[in-house]
Amino acid sequence: MGKYKLGEIAAAVAGTVEGDATTIILGVGGIEEAGPEDITFVANKKYIPLLKTTNAGAVILGEGVEAPDLNVVRVAEPYAAFARVLAMFAPEPALPENVSDLAYIADGAAVDEKAAVGPFAVVDAGATIGAGTAICAGSYIGRDSSVGEDCIIYPNVTVRERVTIGDRVIIHPNAVLGSDGFGFATAEGVHHKVPQIGTVVVGDDVEIGAGTTIDRGTMGATVIGDGCKIDNLVQIAHNVTLGKGTILAAQVGIAGSTKVGEYVVMGGQVGLVGHIEVGDRVQIGAKSGIPKSIPPGEIWFGYPARPIMDTKRIEAYLKRLGELFDRVKNIERKLEGKG
Amino acid sequence: MGKYKLGEIAAAVAGTVEGDATTIILGVGGIEEAGPEDITFVANKKYIPLLKTTNAGAVILGEGVEAPDLNVVRVAEPYAAFARVLAMFAPEPALPENVSDLAYIADGAAVDEKAAVGPFAVVDAGATIGAGTAICAGSYIGRDSSVGEDCIIYPNVTVRERVTIGDRVIIHPNAVLGSDGFGFATAEGVHHKVPQIGTVVVGDDVEIGAGTTIDRGTMGATVIGDGCKIDNLVQIAHNVTLGKGTILAAQVGIAGSTKVGEYVVMGGQVGLVGHIEVGDRVQIGAKSGIPKSIPPGEIWFGYPARPIMDTKRIEAYLKRLGELFDRVKNIERKLEGKG
Amino acid sequence: MGKYKLGEIAAAVAGTVEGDATTIILGVGGIEEAGPEDITFVANKKYIPLLKTTNAGAVILGEGVEAPDLNVVRVAEPYAAFARVLAMFAPEPALPENVSDLAYIADGAAVDEKAAVGPFAVVDAGATIGAGTAICAGSYIGRDSSVGEDCIIYPNVTVRERVTIGDRVIIHPNAVLGSDGFGFATAEGVHHKVPQIGTVVVGDDVEIGAGTTIDRGTMGATVIGDGCKIDNLVQIAHNVTLGKGTILAAQVGIAGSTKVGEYVVMGGQVGLVGHIEVGDRVQIGAKSGIPKSIPPGEIWFGYPARPIMDTKRIEAYLKRLGELFDRVKNIERKLEGKG
Repeated sequence: MGKYKLGEIAAAVAGTVEGDATTIILGVGGIEEAGPEDITFVANKKYIPLLKTTNAGAVILGEGVEAPDLNVVRVAEPYAAFARVLAMFAPEPALPENVSDLAYIADGAAVDEKAAVGPFAVVDAGATIGAGTAICAGSYIGRDSSVGEDCIIYPNVTVRERVTIGDRVIIHPNAVLGSDGFGFATAEGVHHKVPQIGTVVVGDDVEIGAGTTIDRGTMGATVIGDGCKIDNLVQIAHNVTLGKGTILAAQVGIAGSTKVGEYVVMGGQVGLVGHIEVGDRVQIGAKSGIPKSIPPGEIWFGYPARPIMDTKRIEAYLKRLGELFDRVKNIERKLEGKG
Repeated sequence: MGKYKLGEIAAAVAGTVEGDATTIILGVGGIEEAGPEDITFVANKKYIPLLKTTNAGAVILGEGVEAPDLNVVRVAEPYAAFARVLAMFAPEPALPENVSDLAYIADGAAVDEKAAVGPFAVVDAGATIGAGTAICAGSYIGRDSSVGEDCIIYPNVTVRERVTIGDRVIIHPNAVLGSDGFGFATAEGVHHKVPQIGTVVVGDDVEIGAGTTIDRGTMGATVIGDGCKIDNLVQIAHNVTLGKGTILAAQVGIAGSTKVGEYVVMGGQVGLVGHIEVGDRVQIGAKSGIPKSIPPGEIWFGYPARPIMDTKRIEAYLKRLGELFDRVKNIERKLEGKG
Repeated sequence: MGKYKLGEIAAAVAGTVEGDATTIILGVGGIEEAGPEDITFVANKKYIPLLKTTNAGAVILGEGVEAPDLNVVRVAEPYAAFARVLAMFAPEPALPENVSDLAYIADGAAVDEKAAVGPFAVVDAGATIGAGTAICAGSYIGRDSSVGEDCIIYPNVTVRERVTIGDRVIIHPNAVLGSDGFGFATAEGVHHKVPQIGTVVVGDDVEIGAGTTIDRGTMGATVIGDGCKIDNLVQIAHNVTLGKGTILAAQVGIAGSTKVGEYVVMGGQVGLVGHIEVGDRVQIGAKSGIPKSIPPGEIWFGYPARPIMDTKRIEAYLKRLGELFDRVKNIERKLEGKG
């Protein structure tokens, strides 16, 4: 783990100490769990009141938040600073360090001498694995697929054939890349399979969550742009494209051929129909169902989803619906009384 | 399988026979499928009418349900009794019985001599496996993780490093424990990974469904309380806590740091935002989206979810909306006529 | 890959060439990506305008769609024809071709001599694998399970014990068949496991998506009818039955004992409660929540779902709710003015 003086931590995050810079910090913790030898942080206003009761030995704070009784590391971006502090206290990585005798590297596969492959992992014929990359136990890298440099492919991941993965990509356990797109041509009661001869292209600095599935293109590619972050159990269908920096929370589903722009953010369990376009920097609230294209920069929410202010307005009316029925009843009574 | 006289079955479930206690029972079946040598049960009122047409050789019933033409085993709790009868007829378990020559037990791992490990499973360095536990084919138990006694880890499960699992835990195939929480600090268009240095702690008597994913804490632990039952394809984010005895149906998703109480029940596809609290014994209807904390004991439903009576009231009004528009139109006409 | 004259392609799909039948075609592409040596198609009206700007060397069209400046292959069913053309250009399959020395075939398993089993796959005791079937790397076929002929079981699939799979079935990576149904009998705060002693029966020509989970029956079987097509991350609970030809899009969830008819189509993220019946040829819109049985042939949508016209009517009223509040306010003012 780690042992630092508070001053050392402040230096590492380009912050300044308010309090005792010689305080010894042995760990990190949430504001409610941290003890006198832990450092914590507040980036979300919701947790500011807990500054009065925390037992933390120090706290990382942004400008304008006061904690007079605590040792403070003052920074511009407390969440980013805390991320750096977490890295200082991170345990050793638990990844394979070389190519296991129990892995299967097929003839014609090219595993860089600085790559590692765990037991019972398979690198199939024609596949290439870049320097600094770890393929963990039980994972399968299919024929002619390539994994770039400094990637982590956690256990039991399946990457099928002809998939291309960039550098510094992290794929969490049991994710699937390159499964067939879901396409059938139905004739006389028989669903004939449409061959899925395309592939998947994943950019650099992408993270793909546990159990997430990304289908290959029917033809051409399903594309995950540089810097995309995809949470667990997300479904991405054939020929979807995600622009760079897009973030998908868990259990999102995107149907075939939909184009998602750059720096889009979707909450958990959002669903998008196929063949639509979602503009750059769109934000979609959790569990929304998106039935049509969304222009850049808009915030949508609901099922079916609308611009969020429309949804909120309807929600407000819904709460007053009973009152409206009463008012109409009243009017009717008055009119009857008058009639 | 099994062969029992009806009287033997009744004795095993502390029930009494009404009818022929010497009837031979060779199997169990649903009320519509059971034949003359099968025993069935009715615990759900919906199926009472089928007592008139069933071909079952006997039926397990609670008090107050009559089936004069059938052999009846009368008990206090028919569903629980039936569960015990199912166990009597259960086939042999299909689990590994010892440590396979084809498993990989790393140096420094401790597998109890009464534990079993299937082919191509990995128990990594520092991991411990308790007595009576079976780790099935292709599963991975990460460094310094521990699995208690009498657990079943089905095939292709991934348990990453430093995860703690209690006794009598069942983890279904392809589930993932200890994947990184989903946290990024964004600066100038770059999503910097927040290290996820915490872990997962699973209590005793927990069941975790196939394909379910449970992320490790950012720091501290994601906690699954004793006796929790989690269905398939559920997503549990970093630092979530589930109190004891909580039940999550399939495809539920719970966002980061949310605290769920004891004996909570969630229907399928429910989603919860992060950083909220759900009180003890709360019930949440299927597919609800929970945007905020819920006090203990309440029943919520809808998207966005509300107390179920509020949602039902709104639903009732929605059905009558057309009528309301007509009534207002009528009033307007009357007023115009008068004007 | 492939190289064909356009006339050869037309012959293969029983179409006629309008234009230059000697055009050389080297590949296939979407209408926006295809180049002069690619063939594309239009089956969805939405893409007809792109016929004016495509760079494709040829296009497959149905009757009534004109593209005077392009080489056209005219057919009755353009999507089905395109599926056949995709097959002409499909790369070599990337499947194991024989039984790997690194696979584990248990004593008493029967693998047909024309079947293939990849490295680190397990075929457990009593299991049978039919001719022409490929079990890919890391997959597990449990005790006494059977996989028919000409099936593809992609990597890291788990099929537990006593599951029956028909012929020409495709199971995508990391899917799970035969996990325990989710059933507990609760007494005095303890959720006692209801043994799940049934199985799963999968018909012929079924496709099961990546990460999809299909639980075994409590007793009897969970049944997937012939020709069913199931997308990724779908959850099918114990004792569900799907009639033949039914199609489930990604992330659908079906609760226990629900009976789904033939040729039913469900959009993505649909959820169904347990113990209901969905009639033949029912269609359910994406993300719907189905609370009760649906008669054959109906189209339902919404949460909670209703017949789609009812849902659309309510949606239309919701958009006008603000107006209705205004109209009632107006009436009240008039009446006050008069009073």
